[in-house]
Amino acid sequence: MSDFQEKLAQKIDTKTKPLGALGQLEEVAEKVATVQGKLSPELLNPHIVVFAGDHGLAKEGVSAYPAEVTPQMVLNFVRGGAGINVFCRQNGLTLKVVDAGVNFAFDDIDQLEHRKVGFGTRNSVEQKAMTSFEFRECFEHGIEIVRDLKAQGCNVLGFGEMGIGNTSASALLMHRLLDLPLEECVGRGTGLDDEGFKAKLEILEKVAQRHATIEDPLEVMQAFGGFEMAMMMGAMVEAYEQGMLLLVDGFISTAVFLCAVKFRPEVQRNALFSHLSDESGHKKMLDALGEKPLLSLNLRLGEGTGCALAYPIVQSAVAFLNEMASFQEAGVSEKVEV
Amino acid sequence: MSDFQEKLAQKIDTKTKPLGALGQLEEVAEKVATVQGKLSPELLNPHIVVFAGDHGLAKEGVSAYPAEVTPQMVLNFVRGGAGINVFCRQNGLTLKVVDAGVNFAFDDIDQLEHRKVGFGTRNSVEQKAMTSFEFRECFEHGIEIVRDLKAQGCNVLGFGEMGIGNTSASALLMHRLLDLPLEECVGRGTGLDDEGFKAKLEILEKVAQRHATIEDPLEVMQAFGGFEMAMMMGAMVEAYEQGMLLLVDGFISTAVFLCAVKFRPEVQRNALFSHLSDESGHKKMLDALGEKPLLSLNLRLGEGTGCALAYPIVQSAVAFLNEMASFQEAGVSEKVEV
Repeated sequence: MSDFQEKLAQKIDTKTKPLGALGQLEEVAEKVATVQGKLSPELLNPHIVVFAGDHGLAKEGVSAYPAEVTPQMVLNFVRGGAGINVFCRQNGLTLKVVDAGVNFAFDDIDQLEHRKVGFGTRNSVEQKAMTSFEFRECFEHGIEIVRDLKAQGCNVLGFGEMGIGNTSASALLMHRLLDLPLEECVGRGTGLDDEGFKAKLEILEKVAQRHATIEDPLEVMQAFGGFEMAMMMGAMVEAYEQGMLLLVDGFISTAVFLCAVKFRPEVQRNALFSHLSDESGHKKMLDALGEKPLLSLNLRLGEGTGCALAYPIVQSAVAFLNEMASFQEAGVSEKVEV
Repeated sequence: MSDFQEKLAQKIDTKTKPLGALGQLEEVAEKVATVQGKLSPELLNPHIVVFAGDHGLAKEGVSAYPAEVTPQMVLNFVRGGAGINVFCRQNGLTLKVVDAGVNFAFDDIDQLEHRKVGFGTRNSVEQKAMTSFEFRECFEHGIEIVRDLKAQGCNVLGFGEMGIGNTSASALLMHRLLDLPLEECVGRGTGLDDEGFKAKLEILEKVAQRHATIEDPLEVMQAFGGFEMAMMMGAMVEAYEQGMLLLVDGFISTAVFLCAVKFRPEVQRNALFSHLSDESGHKKMLDALGEKPLLSLNLRLGEGTGCALAYPIVQSAVAFLNEMASFQEAGVSEKVEV
C-alpha cells in the first residue's frame, strides 16, 4: 500500500462510525480521492454530456420507436423537458447536448454542441457503420469536447446518449468484445414485444456474420457502433487522460466503456458505474468489468439519467470523507478490543 | 382503479420516455402522489428525526462498543460531526436529535430535543425493558414530536436512531413479530467477531425465553425495545395519521416499523424504504413487508443515514412527475404499435 493509500484508509477508518459501516460509499470515497490524488477531493463543475446520433441499422426495424424520435428528443433536451434535464437541474449538473450524427438538419441552436459527422451511420447489415475516417473524426470530437470542459474546470463527467437503434449496436459490441452469444447480449431496448425481439435477434446475427473477423476495439466500434457512441468513446478515453472522474450510465454507455477499456485499460481506474439497467445484458457487462453499480432502480431510459440520479451518492461519499468528525475530534470511544 | 389513480398513471405514462423506463422511480412517484392525494405532490420542510436511548441489555456485552458511545454520539450529532449531519446538510434535510432515554445527564442543549423517559431501559434478560407507563410515555412523546413538525409544515420524515445494544432489541422484535428463529434475526451489529456473535445469540435466547408468551405488538415493544424505539414507533404511527411520507432507515428502524405496522397496518401505505442494510436479517424483514428499498450500498451505520442518502431519489421521483414534458408537449412520436 502506498503512503497515500495508507493515509486515505486511516482517514476513512477513524471517522465516527463502525469500521466499514458506510459500505460502498467508502469505496467511492477511496476511488475519488485516488483519482484526484487528494485526501480531501472536490467535485468541480460537474457535467453530463449526452451524445446523439442515428443508426443506419434502425431501418431494419430493431427499435420500438421510429428514428424521428432521435431529433425530437434532442429538441426536448434543448428545451429542458426530458428526464435528464429534470435530474441535472435537481442535482446541480450542467447538461451538454452533442449532435454527433443525428439524421436531421438542426438550426444553429446555441444550447446544442454541433459536432455532426454525418446524417446517421450506414446500415451495418450491409457495410461497416462508419468509415475509418468518420470513426476517427468522432473520436477526435470526443477528445475536444472533454478538453473544453476541462478548461472550464470540470473534473467529473457523466456520459449519456440518445439514438434510436443504439441498444442493437451495443449488443453487437458486447457480443464481440466479451465473446458471448448474441442471445445473452440482446434485450428489448425501449420496449419490443416477443416477435419484435426475435426479429431483432435475427438481424443482429446477420450483422455479426457480416463483420465476423473484426476484433480490434477501434474497428469493432467502427463496424457496429454509432457516431454518438464513437464520440463518447473518445471522450471517455480523454476524460481519463485529463484525470477526471467518469460516471458511466446504463447498457449503451457501458458497452462503449467496454470498448474504451479494451483499447485503454487504465480508463477503468477513473470510472464509477451509476446504475444497473433493466436492459438484460447490462449485468453481464458489469460482471465482466468486475464492477458493482451505485443504484439498482430498474431504469432503462438512457440519456445519462442514471449518472444524474447517482451523482448525489458520489457527493455523499466525498462529503463524509471531508466533513465527518474523527473519533478523536468528537471524543467518541472506539470499539472495545477484547 | 380510482379516477385519481387513473389520472396519475396517465400522467406518468405520457412523459417523454419509454413506458416504465424510470422503473422504481415511477413507483415512488405514484406513492408520494397517492399519499398526498395530488397529481403534483411537493416535499416540504423535510426532516430526519434521530431518537437516542440506552439499553439495559447492553451490560450483557451484546455490542462491540461500550454504552458510553450513545451519549458521545448524541453530542457528535449536536455538534454536526456525524454521518447523518453531513448527509442532512448535503441534501437539504433538517436534523432533529431526540434524547429519548440516554444514560447521561445532558446540559440544557438547544439543539437537543429533551424527551428523556429514563436513564436507559431495564435489562430485558431480567424483566421487561420498560414499564407500561414508560412505554406509553415514549409513544406519546413520539406523537407530540411529529405534531410539532407537522405544525412547521413538514410533510416528509425520515427515522433514525442511536443506541448501543439496539440491534439486539431489534433482532428480538423481529424474532417475535415474524416468528423466525433467532439465528435468522441476529447479526453482527456494529462489528462483533465470531465469539461475540455466539455470546450475543445465547443472551438473546435467554431474553426471548424470559418473555416467551408476549405477542401483542405494543407489549413486544415494551418487553424488548428501547425508549428510542418506542418513541420512534409512536412517531411513525402519528406520521401516518398526519398524512406525511415516512422514510424508513435500516435494520433497527425497520424492526420498529414492523411493530408499528402490526399495530396499525395502514402505516405502510405512507412508507418508503431507503436502503438494504448490511446487517443480516434486514432483507428478511423487507421481504416480509413486501418492500424493495431504494438503495443497496451495504450501509450499517444507522442514525437515519440511509434515509438522508436516499432522499435525493425521492426528490427525483417527484421532480420527473412534476417537470418532465409529455410526448404531446415536446412533439415527440410515441411508440410504433404494429
